[in-house]
Amino acid sequence: MKEVLNFIDQNKDQYLAELVEFLKIPSISSEEAYNESTYKAAEWLADNFRNAGIPEIKLYETKGHPIVYAQDLTAGAGAPTILVYGHYDVQPVDPLDLWDSPPFEPVIKNGKIFARGTSDDKGQAFMHVKAYEAYKKIKGALPVNVKYMIEGEEECGGDNLEEFIINNQEMLKCDTVMVSDTEWFADGMPSICYSLRGNVYLEITVTGPNRDLHSGTYGGGVDNPLNVLCWMISQLKDSDGRISIPGFYDNVLDLTEVERDAFKKLPFSEEEYCKDLDINMTHGELGYTTLERVWARPTLDLNGIYGGYTGLGSKTVLPSKASAKFSMRIVPHQTSEEIALKAKSYLEKLCPPTVKLSIKMLWGGNPVLMPIDSKSIKIAIESLKEAFGKDTVFMREGGSIPVVGLFDSVLKAPTVLMGMGLPGDNIHSPNESFSIENFYGGIKASALFIDKYK
Amino acid sequence: MKEVLNFIDQNKDQYLAELVEFLKIPSISSEEAYNESTYKAAEWLADNFRNAGIPEIKLYETKGHPIVYAQDLTAGAGAPTILVYGHYDVQPVDPLDLWDSPPFEPVIKNGKIFARGTSDDKGQAFMHVKAYEAYKKIKGALPVNVKYMIEGEEECGGDNLEEFIINNQEMLKCDTVMVSDTEWFADGMPSICYSLRGNVYLEITVTGPNRDLHSGTYGGGVDNPLNVLCWMISQLKDSDGRISIPGFYDNVLDLTEVERDAFKKLPFSEEEYCKDLDINMTHGELGYTTLERVWARPTLDLNGIYGGYTGLGSKTVLPSKASAKFSMRIVPHQTSEEIALKAKSYLEKLCPPTVKLSIKMLWGGNPVLMPIDSKSIKIAIESLKEAFGKDTVFMREGGSIPVVGLFDSVLKAPTVLMGMGLPGDNIHSPNESFSIENFYGGIKASALFIDKYK
Repeated sequence: MKEVLNFIDQNKDQYLAELVEFLKIPSISSEEAYNESTYKAAEWLADNFRNAGIPEIKLYETKGHPIVYAQDLTAGAGAPTILVYGHYDVQPVDPLDLWDSPPFEPVIKNGKIFARGTSDDKGQAFMHVKAYEAYKKIKGALPVNVKYMIEGEEECGGDNLEEFIINNQEMLKCDTVMVSDTEWFADGMPSICYSLRGNVYLEITVTGPNRDLHSGTYGGGVDNPLNVLCWMISQLKDSDGRISIPGFYDNVLDLTEVERDAFKKLPFSEEEYCKDLDINMTHGELGYTTLERVWARPTLDLNGIYGGYTGLGSKTVLPSKASAKFSMRIVPHQTSEEIALKAKSYLEKLCPPTVKLSIKMLWGGNPVLMPIDSKSIKIAIESLKEAFGKDTVFMREGGSIPVVGLFDSVLKAPTVLMGMGLPGDNIHSPNESFSIENFYGGIKASALFIDKYK
Repeated sequence: MKEVLNFIDQNKDQYLAELVEFLKIPSISSEEAYNESTYKAAEWLADNFRNAGIPEIKLYETKGHPIVYAQDLTAGAGAPTILVYGHYDVQPVDPLDLWDSPPFEPVIKNGKIFARGTSDDKGQAFMHVKAYEAYKKIKGALPVNVKYMIEGEEECGGDNLEEFIINNQEMLKCDTVMVSDTEWFADGMPSICYSLRGNVYLEITVTGPNRDLHSGTYGGGVDNPLNVLCWMISQLKDSDGRISIPGFYDNVLDLTEVERDAFKKLPFSEEEYCKDLDINMTHGELGYTTLERVWARPTLDLNGIYGGYTGLGSKTVLPSKASAKFSMRIVPHQTSEEIALKAKSYLEKLCPPTVKLSIKMLWGGNPVLMPIDSKSIKIAIESLKEAFGKDTVFMREGGSIPVVGLFDSVLKAPTVLMGMGLPGDNIHSPNESFSIENFYGGIKASALFIDKYK
């Protein structure tokens, strides 16, 4: 492998130059005006795969943006198979005036490359193409089968990838999935994320009278759907951050002492956290630290509420209806179906007979937990150690990456979240950047992973 | 007076024809496109006053629509003075397609006249002009001084009338104010409204983190302003409809047994009320009937709430801030200042240290209570009895009529709310109408009131 790693070192400038080309194509998937250039980015990536020497490459058209799919199965049926996932689309760039340089004109400064999509996820997806290329060039062939699925709808919430995965299970069959679309816990601290929370997103509507009423004429005589809604919501969680839905905690997998100790050793400053958010103090479930709360404990958050008069000034209305959107972040081994049912049944019991209640489930996804002693994760740790010369820390993530749930449930393959982003990368914000050291190290780690997985 | 009443009977058709003319002028005060025609309505009314023989008449310009002011002080300084208040402006007409006939082309059908402004308030204000005219024509002079102040901004929330009253206290000085801008409790049941609730309208905003956060990444670790807002609101009123603000009920004047008995005798059907609103049941303070709750007990209603994501579908946001608008209807002898202070102090105590709270008072008005054994009300009852041949019932009103508060606090004069509207008049809605019998009877009652007040 020394030769492969040397080759990567020798070609650093070339890789960076190619990444700059890739970043220049504005592939904003959520804005129709960029449909053509999003397509161009897919074509550019397919060309780059072709130049890397991969034998099979295809653009799969969808109802939205195409999926770039490439594979090299020359290792044969007896060898293990790695599926790499990434995305070539990027977030919108607003507010444009907060960018120090134009988002699609990459600038290199202080060891970072600045442009939209550098960290999320063009730069990270591209590492795997270059790793393949280097390995193939030096060794002639790979010891494992590799499949690359780089989509174009991660940032626009498209559901075409789900359909693609379900319809192409045989083609996508693999022993492990590798994803580089996450961050390190801190600069200089290679990290692997081994658990994601799931989510149950509900919208409830409380309906009272058949029309908006004058709050002077009717107020005090007719129950007010807005007051009822607020009361019902207040009954979902207590002031200690515990969710009051009966049976909610039944299947929660407690954190192990090993995990809690490991989290405590991470360089997390409660003070910095509060300062960054401009809050007086954090708040959450009693008996847990902030990292434990956001990574490994379930919670319930209102995401939106509306009803009655919301314009300027006053209007004396007793509204006919009121709605709230809220989501419950769930953890292993809770399931979205289970929690949705428990929440619905509790809400129905809470609802007084003076109003009508309707409940819609807008989204549901299960939590994911990847055993940290699995082959994939062990190899990832070794690869990171050799690429960066540093030990890996384990972290979890409070949000969901829905596609990881699909790999788990549809492909039945464990996912390794070996991202190379850093907390200061400003993904989804102006001045997005990616550490150039992490970009090069990520290429090496990907090549090492291929080599070790055989 | 027989002669005056006969004269009114003989001129019925003429009065109705004049009212039709008045109604044809689209005086929608809130829509700029109607500014010119609103002015025309004021001029038309001033001309009509002039033709009625009133000696002094003037259009007072304001920053908005003019005030029509007319007076006859020939009775002299020793005689009592009546101030009549009304408004010549009308509500907008949307939705136009629900009108059976054009809103400014009056139609007479089934004993009613249909047009925008018939009942609210052109038809009712106009009764008093015709009463003056008839009395003056037949008797040559009035036994009392009369002042007429008919404004053009009642339906657009203008505050020019308040300024006018404050600046012209000497001119407007009177012993009683007569207002015909309310409804009878039921058809065939002449009514006098002797109490109005006041109102304290607050807007509160709860602010958490300095920006919207991802509810996956931060949820469970940072207090959510929307959840806090809902909880705070849930603490303002208990499930029995009692307001939980400390000291809230301190100054509430209890209903007398006489009042409660009188209300119970009114033809109110709980079943019809629920059916009309499409609700399963009414709801309010334990121990009180619906009429008592909406007329004579204080309450607290959310009027609007907003925060976070309120569009279609789901967005996983932990919002930076959330706001609610709510109003407290207050009753004699609560005051808006007192209640606003108590509410603010309670809210500040409720607010947890994890978030910031701001409270704005958007509106405040005191309740009004007019003694039913006062001279004005006694004379109004006699006048109604002679005009309609029926006994008067007493009612209260849950809403506020802000100008009545001004008459009370600035002019120190009691107001008689002797309206002639009916519950089915559809004021503020399509197909507004006014009972022609009540129009004629109202002219007579107004003339009788002048005669008896001497």
